[in-house]
Amino acid sequence: MFGKWKLGACLPTFASCADRYCLSGYGRGGKTMEEMLAMAKKVEGLDGLELVGNWHINDENIAKVTRLFKDFGFAIPMIVPDLWTQEKWGRGSLAAADPATRKAAVAEVKKCMDWAAEAGCPTVDVWPGQDGFEYTFQADYTDAWKWLRDGVAECAAHSKKVKVLLEYKLREPRGHCFLNSAAKTILLLQGIGNTGCLLDVGHSLAAGENMAEAAALLADHKLLDYIHLNDNSRSWDDDMIFASVHASEHLELVYWLLRTGYAGWLTLDIFPYREEKIPAASESFAWVRAMITRIEKRGLPAVGEIVRRGEGTDSVRLVRELLMGGS
Amino acid sequence: MFGKWKLGACLPTFASCADRYCLSGYGRGGKTMEEMLAMAKKVEGLDGLELVGNWHINDENIAKVTRLFKDFGFAIPMIVPDLWTQEKWGRGSLAAADPATRKAAVAEVKKCMDWAAEAGCPTVDVWPGQDGFEYTFQADYTDAWKWLRDGVAECAAHSKKVKVLLEYKLREPRGHCFLNSAAKTILLLQGIGNTGCLLDVGHSLAAGENMAEAAALLADHKLLDYIHLNDNSRSWDDDMIFASVHASEHLELVYWLLRTGYAGWLTLDIFPYREEKIPAASESFAWVRAMITRIEKRGLPAVGEIVRRGEGTDSVRLVRELLMGGS
Amino acid sequence: MFGKWKLGACLPTFASCADRYCLSGYGRGGKTMEEMLAMAKKVEGLDGLELVGNWHINDENIAKVTRLFKDFGFAIPMIVPDLWTQEKWGRGSLAAADPATRKAAVAEVKKCMDWAAEAGCPTVDVWPGQDGFEYTFQADYTDAWKWLRDGVAECAAHSKKVKVLLEYKLREPRGHCFLNSAAKTILLLQGIGNTGCLLDVGHSLAAGENMAEAAALLADHKLLDYIHLNDNSRSWDDDMIFASVHASEHLELVYWLLRTGYAGWLTLDIFPYREEKIPAASESFAWVRAMITRIEKRGLPAVGEIVRRGEGTDSVRLVRELLMGGS
Amino acid sequence: MFGKWKLGACLPTFASCADRYCLSGYGRGGKTMEEMLAMAKKVEGLDGLELVGNWHINDENIAKVTRLFKDFGFAIPMIVPDLWTQEKWGRGSLAAADPATRKAAVAEVKKCMDWAAEAGCPTVDVWPGQDGFEYTFQADYTDAWKWLRDGVAECAAHSKKVKVLLEYKLREPRGHCFLNSAAKTILLLQGIGNTGCLLDVGHSLAAGENMAEAAALLADHKLLDYIHLNDNSRSWDDDMIFASVHASEHLELVYWLLRTGYAGWLTLDIFPYREEKIPAASESFAWVRAMITRIEKRGLPAVGEIVRRGEGTDSVRLVRELLMGGS
Repeated sequence: MFGKWKLGACLPTFASCADRYCLSGYGRGGKTMEEMLAMAKKVEGLDGLELVGNWHINDENIAKVTRLFKDFGFAIPMIVPDLWTQEKWGRGSLAAADPATRKAAVAEVKKCMDWAAEAGCPTVDVWPGQDGFEYTFQADYTDAWKWLRDGVAECAAHSKKVKVLLEYKLREPRGHCFLNSAAKTILLLQGIGNTGCLLDVGHSLAAGENMAEAAALLADHKLLDYIHLNDNSRSWDDDMIFASVHASEHLELVYWLLRTGYAGWLTLDIFPYREEKIPAASESFAWVRAMITRIEKRGLPAVGEIVRRGEGTDSVRLVRELLMGGS
Repeated sequence: MFGKWKLGACLPTFASCADRYCLSGYGRGGKTMEEMLAMAKKVEGLDGLELVGNWHINDENIAKVTRLFKDFGFAIPMIVPDLWTQEKWGRGSLAAADPATRKAAVAEVKKCMDWAAEAGCPTVDVWPGQDGFEYTFQADYTDAWKWLRDGVAECAAHSKKVKVLLEYKLREPRGHCFLNSAAKTILLLQGIGNTGCLLDVGHSLAAGENMAEAAALLADHKLLDYIHLNDNSRSWDDDMIFASVHASEHLELVYWLLRTGYAGWLTLDIFPYREEKIPAASESFAWVRAMITRIEKRGLPAVGEIVRRGEGTDSVRLVRELLMGGS
Repeated sequence: MFGKWKLGACLPTFASCADRYCLSGYGRGGKTMEEMLAMAKKVEGLDGLELVGNWHINDENIAKVTRLFKDFGFAIPMIVPDLWTQEKWGRGSLAAADPATRKAAVAEVKKCMDWAAEAGCPTVDVWPGQDGFEYTFQADYTDAWKWLRDGVAECAAHSKKVKVLLEYKLREPRGHCFLNSAAKTILLLQGIGNTGCLLDVGHSLAAGENMAEAAALLADHKLLDYIHLNDNSRSWDDDMIFASVHASEHLELVYWLLRTGYAGWLTLDIFPYREEKIPAASESFAWVRAMITRIEKRGLPAVGEIVRRGEGTDSVRLVRELLMGGS
Repeated sequence: MFGKWKLGACLPTFASCADRYCLSGYGRGGKTMEEMLAMAKKVEGLDGLELVGNWHINDENIAKVTRLFKDFGFAIPMIVPDLWTQEKWGRGSLAAADPATRKAAVAEVKKCMDWAAEAGCPTVDVWPGQDGFEYTFQADYTDAWKWLRDGVAECAAHSKKVKVLLEYKLREPRGHCFLNSAAKTILLLQGIGNTGCLLDVGHSLAAGENMAEAAALLADHKLLDYIHLNDNSRSWDDDMIFASVHASEHLELVYWLLRTGYAGWLTLDIFPYREEKIPAASESFAWVRAMITRIEKRGLPAVGEIVRRGEGTDSVRLVRELLMGGS
């Protein structure tokens, strides 16, 4: 916890972190869930961990996993249906051209919703990362968008106990993903109840958005339900330590989260390939805490006055004062 | 004309083309409108020219200008309110923090709508290029979005004779523009009648969109009203000759325009800084004609079959066959 | 063969093609080398295949592998030392801060040079992809550059029979790689004999270079020894089918290869994740052949005359005529 | 002055700041040099101002200008030959295909060197921003590079009193510039005496370089002679307030300037389009001072120890501690 915020992390933060060249990962592989939870316990203030469906939680282990989380004092804020780690989703999941694949994807999400309900987890994260295309003339955009929407609607109707959040991303694993911006996510979800948006701030950055603007737009549409924190080089979803590259933008994001009254989880989605996992997670939260503290000390009204004024130099001075202190 | 399509150009295509260093422009400056129309007349198949309000058409010259266009046999498909060439719009127009500026911007658009009605021009192009920000903490995204929407709504209600089209762009002249994607444009226009979207395909490219996907999304929302053609390096709105950089993407765009039944203008918005203007415009249309011809020859159903299949290699082969012929 | 050019492919073109999410790959895994060579044999005109040291060729199998290649009628144009698939290289290879790692990296390259000499392969491809950094304040640029240079020099001195080629790349697997441009490669190699450059044209694109300009610069320094062909979205090394995205740039590249008298291999380095491997490779060569044929038909002098003229519209018209024919 | 550093600014910082849409500029135009110097005098610690040849200093006014600078207590650290504001340079200056243009460009540089010698200014800044291309097949890279080099060599030989610095940039005003990276600048200058490099850190950023790495490479080659400070969005040379976007990278840059013993000018090249000029310049220097102070307080050896260690989390923690204090 930090103030009203709950602090979370994706479980793979503590795994081996592979890339397409080093498939066995840069960290130690083969850790058990107990080992990863024990590592996570060393991250000060951590309240819960996201799980990927089938890989981390499934029919066989759900009782054991929920007990394990209880023993460690961790919540499960999110279960993520696996629509992206297997060859069968390579040409799409909810928006695949193949109807059987679409059906299987919907079933996968529903299964995760059931596990979530059973495990006391309020949300699932539908990330249609395999729904997209690489080449021109390779996708029927109109059909794909309709299929994606229909699939989400069917999932959302499955259970009132678990809310279906959509996570957008510009690209990767597909060369281009269909659901690639905050605005498109809002469009997709219009008229479908029991849904919301998971804003991965690195996805927003890499999509060419301003993160704070994306958060504000989602909040204005009552769709800002969950946040993933990380940073990147803008050209790729590097899943780096929070605020390590774009401190000014992240500071502004924190201001808008405070201002819009966001009260959900702040969950790390970092990939510390070559770093020790516990310090990498802790360092991310150190930035989060420092930024929240500085903005709260200055006060939302004082910051808001400068934001409304719109004078560039004053805005830059504010950033310098918030980050570096002094005047 | 080319088939059912009307071919247009922005009048500045034939002007001097300045940039921030060479403010007098790389081409000959000071041309009269007669001179520019005479140049435009040499572009084969050109049906009309866009005008910028105040600069090209105003209370003093409207009778003369409409007569001139009639004499030359040109239509005026679009009048563009000048919300971006004067210092007074530097901190915003329809979404400026200053209420008086917002009011002036609405008045400017209405004035252009009146001129359009008088000149028999069916649409105005509202491009809020000065509505945005450079720095973090410099914009109240929620307020700005509301102001932009309110302003557009007020303009759209002004006259039924002239439709208000919105043109989005990621950036420039502002470091970041609020109206920066097809999806945000759709969101903005929801519930406001008498409006539509002007898709500048280079703006779409530079915003990280796939142009054909943007066109399909707009068409699905019945908002694809007008097209600006050009090309660029993706990192900036270079306003280059059509298809000179991204031939595959432009070819796919043309397919989607044909498939969605787009029947409006194909208007060049190129800035041939260092090129002779007439050949630069003609070369753009040569690409347009060649691409339409090739796709129509292959046939929409045959292309559509490959699009639906979603096999990357087949899609690339299609592009090669459409562009280079043979198999 | 195609004219004077030998056509090659990296062996992994025919493997399962994994990414960081789908670690088992999108294609069928576990193929034997015989199976992959049999697949490669179906790619018309293919003359040889690159091998990765240790994975594909090693002390145990070198006799068998060379015989196998002979039986299939394939050359081995390149052996690539594995400096990037194992956790031990995660913090660098030739330029690692750890001296023992640097020493091991040099030994790895030398071992590959020995295998190359034994297998009749004239070159090794040193790709220092793990030599770089993710974060600010994480690298001593001066030390790293010196270590990289010293390591290359030691390798180059190991054997006169095998030439050491350096392959540059902007990023991936590291967030930033030290050896990231043609010009830096030229600087690095100055004064070291028995070395050259492997130009991966997709790396050049993704590094923000113009591929043809990079090829010309390397050729002017007598360092253009080998070419990897592919294409990408400019923001990442997507290893897509040749010319599928940037047909104009690839056409210009082909012109400069012809003009500078490049007479080496044209080797595919594509990752057809979701595509059938044989058609993806064949389609790439279909573009190569079509482009060479068109340029040779037009004639180098005729193209060169337009290049020297420097008039943009003429250059675009040339591209259209070369690609689409007619005038 | 700040410590051993002299603080400078380009004179246009205080001018009207136009872009291609708002050609009269967003600030007040038509200021006299006296007015601009009086404005500059209000920027605390400012030691000198760069001038553009012909525009600001010429045969007619040189006596008056040098006296004016003396009266205001300002040095002239740099004169910039105007090779980019007039239509005549539109197709190139030192590397133009037209020999007469190349000759005129060399003469322009020499003239500025003479004025510099007379005014006690030690360096001229040759920025070949018009030397490049927009389209494929529009440039003979080999010829252009040779012409550029020959022109620089001829200028450098003109006078021993004034050093010729080259400023690289990826693009703008040309779509692609030939001299576009630190490494290419080093290559170009090899074997030509009396030359060096002006590192505009925003040009480095926008070229995809790491600024600190570029500075280190130039310093290792004894070519880091002068620095332009600003910041941008990476996709364009926005000439924003120093460190306003990339605080971490700028902090690292400052460390490398300190570490390599850079002792030259720190000159602002910002374009405060919509900002008051004096506060925008002052705010830039406030960041510079704060960053130098923090690094010197921590100490170069302590920072260097972390840099050499190469552990990402430690590097990020260092940035946080340097920027935000505490631990």
